[in-house]
Amino acid sequence: MAVYTDVSDSELSAFLSRHDLGAVLAFKGIAEGVENTNFFLQTEAGSFILTLYEKRVAESDLPFFMALLSHVAKAGISCPRPVPDRAGKVIGTLAGRNAAIFTFLSGVSVRRPEATHCAQAGEALAALHLATRDFAQTRPNALSLPGWRALVEKISPRVNDINPGLKELMISALAGLADAWPQNLPQGVIHADLFPDNVLFFQGRLSGLIDFYFACSDFLAYDIAIALNAWCFEGDGSFNITKARALVSAYQARRALADAELAALPVLCRGAALRFLLTRAHDLLHHDPSALVRPKDPMEYAGKLRFFLQAASVGALGL
Amino acid sequence: MAVYTDVSDSELSAFLSRHDLGAVLAFKGIAEGVENTNFFLQTEAGSFILTLYEKRVAESDLPFFMALLSHVAKAGISCPRPVPDRAGKVIGTLAGRNAAIFTFLSGVSVRRPEATHCAQAGEALAALHLATRDFAQTRPNALSLPGWRALVEKISPRVNDINPGLKELMISALAGLADAWPQNLPQGVIHADLFPDNVLFFQGRLSGLIDFYFACSDFLAYDIAIALNAWCFEGDGSFNITKARALVSAYQARRALADAELAALPVLCRGAALRFLLTRAHDLLHHDPSALVRPKDPMEYAGKLRFFLQAASVGALGL
Repeated sequence: MAVYTDVSDSELSAFLSRHDLGAVLAFKGIAEGVENTNFFLQTEAGSFILTLYEKRVAESDLPFFMALLSHVAKAGISCPRPVPDRAGKVIGTLAGRNAAIFTFLSGVSVRRPEATHCAQAGEALAALHLATRDFAQTRPNALSLPGWRALVEKISPRVNDINPGLKELMISALAGLADAWPQNLPQGVIHADLFPDNVLFFQGRLSGLIDFYFACSDFLAYDIAIALNAWCFEGDGSFNITKARALVSAYQARRALADAELAALPVLCRGAALRFLLTRAHDLLHHDPSALVRPKDPMEYAGKLRFFLQAASVGALGL
Repeated sequence: MAVYTDVSDSELSAFLSRHDLGAVLAFKGIAEGVENTNFFLQTEAGSFILTLYEKRVAESDLPFFMALLSHVAKAGISCPRPVPDRAGKVIGTLAGRNAAIFTFLSGVSVRRPEATHCAQAGEALAALHLATRDFAQTRPNALSLPGWRALVEKISPRVNDINPGLKELMISALAGLADAWPQNLPQGVIHADLFPDNVLFFQGRLSGLIDFYFACSDFLAYDIAIALNAWCFEGDGSFNITKARALVSAYQARRALADAELAALPVLCRGAALRFLLTRAHDLLHHDPSALVRPKDPMEYAGKLRFFLQAASVGALGL
């Protein structure tokens, strides 16, 4: 949630001269997306989001993200659709950055999702997984087992400064996951970051999915595990079985889970909790105060990880 | 340019239940206004800015700002107009802050104003001064001589850490201003912060003035002096006489300056340069890295102050 790069009116005009969007009515930096700089752009042609890609998104990944968003939008998923310029290009250059224009989605994210929101998130996740079945491109998940191992090594020396015991928790959870991580589950392109922040609702109905910049190729059921982490815990740290059931059964109504996928959910949930614990702890330890972004609390995910370490069967999750 | 306070969807709904603006289509924190947290709010009734007042704006000043904006909007100035709730109130409470909804203005600010933009800024300033003639409320300018003296005392011990010689520059400029500051010039409510950031243009025409949170009672010509500082210097630090003439003559076309006002412009310009040098130096020295805002460069205003110290007559400004 930051505006890292400033864009002048003249730079904007030059960039927009490649498009047929008419005159600019409004252009405001918005506090959305920790990875990029986003602007709300209103022109005579409508409302858009203009994104400048900062260094955290690899330039070589941009064609994948653009193709993915175009593909799933065409398949009926409500997501930001890249708007091509007159030459058909969706990636341009603005203020020395790669930049793209997307359609604007109505709706607001919910802070405290209820079971009905969880169900709609689960349904949308299944729809996304069905929509990516015929998407040919792949992108490895840099934040799976090998990535976690590298992060554990990097942050181990200082992580107990955040909270005593974190180092031991990380190391033992990683060792357990190295043994238990599934080998053969249905794969595809997953969102990999479907937090409530990234789902918009309009009058109680899901109106769009945003922020696909962690999308990658992995087990489809791992996307559900991330969503269970992100949507189904209460503020006091307790796991809400009603919400988990709502999310998973709405998912299954669109795409039935194989027995192996369902059985793997507890270990996938453990992996997802470790993934967000590690990246949050890393971002807190390596926080650059000039980055204009507040680091998120890693301890929230230490609690979730401890919960999933004890909930070893799918029954313990209420599923 | 920061979002200091987060607002949940349920807090927003509760706040908007006092208004008749229909359902929320979009709600995004925007990077505008260093003093407050601003959101772009789109509802079935149109586009708005929702402002949360952070501690830098005194609660006791809010009724003045609201009355001023309503007054000048009614007089035809294009500015954010407070939107009253069903009970007629323009200030409510949201996320523990005072909050208000304003009409949204189209347009974008220009980074490098040309003479035509300077002329329009001058004309708008005169129109604003005419519009506030029959505005009864007053608000003392906390950033005039006594305020500068307090700031000089506060930052003197450390200001040369920013740049050697700054302390001596500040102290001698302040002493000169204490002797030369005018006593009797036409007064009224001024904007007091009319930087290019705070003026919107749509297709080359001025479409609105924003950010009135420094508005106060002072010499009308001091507002011109602030604008000459903010609009008429080039990136290399040189004063652009063409732009200054454009700004002042467009102002005079709407409101003729008295001889005393014109003669006072050089000293008022010196005061304005010192005012922004002091507040920027203060904000840099007392910068809180968690404030999510990049401090502005005080040295830009040290250069402008040195220029105005040498340009002692209105002729030296090309006016």
